[in-house]
Amino acid sequence: MIRFDSDYIEGAHPSILDALVRTNFDQTAGYGEDAFCEEARTIIRRHCNDDTLGVQFLVGGTQTNVTVIDAFLRSYQGVISADSGHINVHETGAPEATGHKVIALPSHDGRLSLQQIKECNEAHWNDPAHEHTVQPGMVYLSFPAENGLIYTKAELTEISEYCRANRLYLFVDGARMGYGLTSEACDVTLADLARLCDVFYIGGTKVGALFGEAVVFKDKEMHRSFRYAIKQHGGMLAKGRLLGIQFAELLRDGEDCLYYKLARHANIQAARIKESFTKKGIRMWNASATNMQFPILTKEQQQKLAQDFAFERWGTFDEKSDVVRFCTSWATRSEAVDALCAAIEKL
Amino acid sequence: MIRFDSDYIEGAHPSILDALVRTNFDQTAGYGEDAFCEEARTIIRRHCNDDTLGVQFLVGGTQTNVTVIDAFLRSYQGVISADSGHINVHETGAPEATGHKVIALPSHDGRLSLQQIKECNEAHWNDPAHEHTVQPGMVYLSFPAENGLIYTKAELTEISEYCRANRLYLFVDGARMGYGLTSEACDVTLADLARLCDVFYIGGTKVGALFGEAVVFKDKEMHRSFRYAIKQHGGMLAKGRLLGIQFAELLRDGEDCLYYKLARHANIQAARIKESFTKKGIRMWNASATNMQFPILTKEQQQKLAQDFAFERWGTFDEKSDVVRFCTSWATRSEAVDALCAAIEKL
Amino acid sequence: MIRFDSDYIEGAHPSILDALVRTNFDQTAGYGEDAFCEEARTIIRRHCNDDTLGVQFLVGGTQTNVTVIDAFLRSYQGVISADSGHINVHETGAPEATGHKVIALPSHDGRLSLQQIKECNEAHWNDPAHEHTVQPGMVYLSFPAENGLIYTKAELTEISEYCRANRLYLFVDGARMGYGLTSEACDVTLADLARLCDVFYIGGTKVGALFGEAVVFKDKEMHRSFRYAIKQHGGMLAKGRLLGIQFAELLRDGEDCLYYKLARHANIQAARIKESFTKKGIRMWNASATNMQFPILTKEQQQKLAQDFAFERWGTFDEKSDVVRFCTSWATRSEAVDALCAAIEKL
Amino acid sequence: MIRFDSDYIEGAHPSILDALVRTNFDQTAGYGEDAFCEEARTIIRRHCNDDTLGVQFLVGGTQTNVTVIDAFLRSYQGVISADSGHINVHETGAPEATGHKVIALPSHDGRLSLQQIKECNEAHWNDPAHEHTVQPGMVYLSFPAENGLIYTKAELTEISEYCRANRLYLFVDGARMGYGLTSEACDVTLADLARLCDVFYIGGTKVGALFGEAVVFKDKEMHRSFRYAIKQHGGMLAKGRLLGIQFAELLRDGEDCLYYKLARHANIQAARIKESFTKKGIRMWNASATNMQFPILTKEQQQKLAQDFAFERWGTFDEKSDVVRFCTSWATRSEAVDALCAAIEKL
Repeated sequence: MIRFDSDYIEGAHPSILDALVRTNFDQTAGYGEDAFCEEARTIIRRHCNDDTLGVQFLVGGTQTNVTVIDAFLRSYQGVISADSGHINVHETGAPEATGHKVIALPSHDGRLSLQQIKECNEAHWNDPAHEHTVQPGMVYLSFPAENGLIYTKAELTEISEYCRANRLYLFVDGARMGYGLTSEACDVTLADLARLCDVFYIGGTKVGALFGEAVVFKDKEMHRSFRYAIKQHGGMLAKGRLLGIQFAELLRDGEDCLYYKLARHANIQAARIKESFTKKGIRMWNASATNMQFPILTKEQQQKLAQDFAFERWGTFDEKSDVVRFCTSWATRSEAVDALCAAIEKL
Repeated sequence: MIRFDSDYIEGAHPSILDALVRTNFDQTAGYGEDAFCEEARTIIRRHCNDDTLGVQFLVGGTQTNVTVIDAFLRSYQGVISADSGHINVHETGAPEATGHKVIALPSHDGRLSLQQIKECNEAHWNDPAHEHTVQPGMVYLSFPAENGLIYTKAELTEISEYCRANRLYLFVDGARMGYGLTSEACDVTLADLARLCDVFYIGGTKVGALFGEAVVFKDKEMHRSFRYAIKQHGGMLAKGRLLGIQFAELLRDGEDCLYYKLARHANIQAARIKESFTKKGIRMWNASATNMQFPILTKEQQQKLAQDFAFERWGTFDEKSDVVRFCTSWATRSEAVDALCAAIEKL
Repeated sequence: MIRFDSDYIEGAHPSILDALVRTNFDQTAGYGEDAFCEEARTIIRRHCNDDTLGVQFLVGGTQTNVTVIDAFLRSYQGVISADSGHINVHETGAPEATGHKVIALPSHDGRLSLQQIKECNEAHWNDPAHEHTVQPGMVYLSFPAENGLIYTKAELTEISEYCRANRLYLFVDGARMGYGLTSEACDVTLADLARLCDVFYIGGTKVGALFGEAVVFKDKEMHRSFRYAIKQHGGMLAKGRLLGIQFAELLRDGEDCLYYKLARHANIQAARIKESFTKKGIRMWNASATNMQFPILTKEQQQKLAQDFAFERWGTFDEKSDVVRFCTSWATRSEAVDALCAAIEKL
Repeated sequence: MIRFDSDYIEGAHPSILDALVRTNFDQTAGYGEDAFCEEARTIIRRHCNDDTLGVQFLVGGTQTNVTVIDAFLRSYQGVISADSGHINVHETGAPEATGHKVIALPSHDGRLSLQQIKECNEAHWNDPAHEHTVQPGMVYLSFPAENGLIYTKAELTEISEYCRANRLYLFVDGARMGYGLTSEACDVTLADLARLCDVFYIGGTKVGALFGEAVVFKDKEMHRSFRYAIKQHGGMLAKGRLLGIQFAELLRDGEDCLYYKLARHANIQAARIKESFTKKGIRMWNASATNMQFPILTKEQQQKLAQDFAFERWGTFDEKSDVVRFCTSWATRSEAVDALCAAIEKL
């Protein structure tokens, strides 16, 4: 069985493990206040072209989403999200468990449009009884979205401008950031994100690290207080160095860094899978140009492929067919994709 | 500078790293539903002599404490703790952030006595206005306590009996469990804990692992629902295998397991430090027989030792002296302790 | 200006005020532990035909909803509601502020069907990753719903049976209970509700009282602990007697009680309004047979009526027309309805 | 039995009831947006000598405390309180239920001193690991304190200055405000409180109203958002007019207002009780010059008085004696105090 069912089915890129082994007996302070974390912070600020940014490291995505939401928002505020957003669907109500309603907007392509955000925010403030509903305080976007699509620089810019003019924090979930930034379809850089967002994160777990998410933010109060939020939400790793070591390893060397190389590899393998389906006349559900591909397969086609490959059922397309998801990752072997493509051809 | 300021200043025992490297390219399911985690569960149940126990893995201590407290308690219940308990002092109000008051009882030696628990619980229920105060729902003990002391089997047994007779969950924080269980002063085993507690955890982070805490529980509703709580509190590691691999490595081989070996090593090194202070006529603050030792040092003595050694100021003893803490760990080199003992002798 | 914009625009029925004045200098215990509250409890249990029921009094609806949800649910559970349910729309995220996600199901007529509840619950438990979403723990219904419609006994019975078979609490919001129970369309009694629900409340605020909601429940743990939840949520009125006095006044005399008389009066006045619109050829949005009526009015019709009458815009119907709401209450004067009917006729 | 066991054992001053009856059929908007509330706001601003203040009305004390704390604080902040403070002792963990730890400081006389606040705040910020403990964000004082003592203007001024210099909100719980302001020992006015505090409230429940607390604040963000917090915490009364009517009635007429008259009456009656005990040679526990008096009585003395009078056991004084509490209120009849004084004389 060759697995394409998620992008976290292996451990970490060997360079990461090497770095952990190499530094294992160095004695450092705990909780992310060590030299490795400092180095990683410097590297990230350089990528973002802004040496005043706050950078903090957490272990996982749900933890990061919740910590950001609860740290930035006031108790009576909620967060606007696509209804398909990870925080609305797959986090066991974690944002709500910290007291914040997810204001879920119906999304046709897994992304939020400026228009939707605007309508939602204006409907709130135009309602004479607005205090009877949660005050919108933040906009949450995933980059790439849960279905692999990304935002253009133009889209992010207009959303950012609206948010700033309307006291809404703009928060970008970057659990799969690398796959987005290195997509052929992408015209956005980390420096753009640092400029346009209030807070975003660079996902390590799904792009080569054992685990780890690097949160980047501007807000002054958060410079003073975000670490409290991390600790309160159980996200402050005792051996914080593990996060610094991994992110330094991933992001060192600017545009040539390991993080981009690994993500590009995954995107290339995903593009091969897409091409293979398309050549076979099998329709793709959307135009994802990242590491997740969503062919529309009949039950029969699914059964055939499932004999040798693991993939995920994403949803129902019509009576005969489902949308399914194939994920590649930094760890996907070219031979595994060869085998998959061969099987697709035989469908 | 040789560091004795905490027990998490290095990475992990090399066997742990080897195991991670060795398994790195195995493809597994995420979220702790892989074969490594299953193996670790089986091993832990065997240690506990009870194959019906629930076993789940989390990343860190604060996260684990909060997840357990919030999963087990009803919204209107609080948790009884020594005022020096980790949940009351060093978790940025994390239990309160989930809605639960810590009912902090003054503790002379860092531990709770049956008498205190009883008085607190009876005072609550005898108060005609008891619903104006938080309902006690759980007793939280640390084993060892934050000051290195442990509970005897007799003490745990009587506390356990009282808790069961009075609808109080008994929860034991085992962030440093290994150092407690292998202490010369200890007559308690994992099987005892599994029998006497409702829920406890075996700490990995401070005893040889990169990170990780293994929660063990009996409660039926928790068998069904504890994983929801983990996910909701951001504690469900995507690559959950990392936890299974580490705990299997640490706890395999029963009484001869790596976990106990590492902990014993730390305790022996700590005993050498204690002996050295005592021989020098320097008084120890308490009778800790685990990996943390607390000599009472004058400012001058502190300054001298601080030239070459890192340790932590624990509190004020009197006008001239402070209590300070020296920690050993699985990673403490015997030569480092030699150097410290030599320096103590020269004080 | 004659107001039909809500059912709480006046104070209380004069008998209520008389009772408050009459008892004003009686000295009683606080917090609902006085003889007036005891009398009201007995009266309510008699209506419900079950003298083992727990009965507690709170001040307002949002407070009551949140207290019930947070008291009954475990931290990792959510509450299933129609998307138009009051808890989902008009409580400023109060349920979420206590940590519980509202699992909002799209509703065509403002009510939930057994089918919807079933599909939602089964989809959850059939999802292999169910712990990544909130565990359904309760079903919330409003009786009448926010749009005036009610459930039949048959509907409530099948929902109740499903809930009991599937570990879901059934909670009925009765903020407008009186208007529902006395509707011509209603075949449900308080005794039915007490039998079929786990917890429901009898709304006073909108049916003749100054304020107050009487919560009725069966659950044993809640008998022991619901008052903690009330106090913790700020709902325990110091002069709790005020609630007991009002509910005793409203519900004394069984089927002939003031509560039903007042509600019937409102329903009759509402029926007159409905008839008036219908006679005029103006379509009603739904079949509400309670105190809220929803005609579909053009902008022009709205403007004309708005000269002398206050009513609420409920939503957009089509390009030309809106759904608007006219509310009657226990306090609606027959002459006011005469005037409104005359104005409708002239449209 | 004549009751002196609390200050909320009767209904409301007859003028309040008259006002409610008089206005009963006026039709108004709900939720505190009516003309009565506006009038009360204007009156309160005049008392406070500041027409820019925010004024909002809630129903009860716990509700108000929690709403203020949760509205003003960020998620990672806690509130400093005397350990005897109402929020720490008698609110069923309500502040913690909104996520905020009460940082309880031991208090000898039920009040907080500048020195204590300063030490607590400095200890926090001087701790290198300060993010491992809750960030102090607010100071909570009760005026009068739970034991009847008050703060002088000089004390409040220095606390206020320290708070402003250190980013701590100063919040004064005024559940018994009237009894404090009209105490002979008091040199503080509402205008002083409005100047020195960030937020405080004027308690109605215990000083003549049926219920109600009027919150007064300066903060700009709260002007925009405090009503969200009220609604979210279930404190927004549907018939908000009831609060406006009561506070207008109580506070109309400046220094000659009913509120002060009622409070003065209670204080005078309390002074008579105090004098009676003192004359009898019975020691008072503290120097309270407000409506609560705390004699130290032997068991035998308690038994004798308990035959005809209800009072509250406050705590143990020594083996033979307890501190007990006698409360007067706006409703205490002079004849009742005559009877009590006669009984004291006979002890």
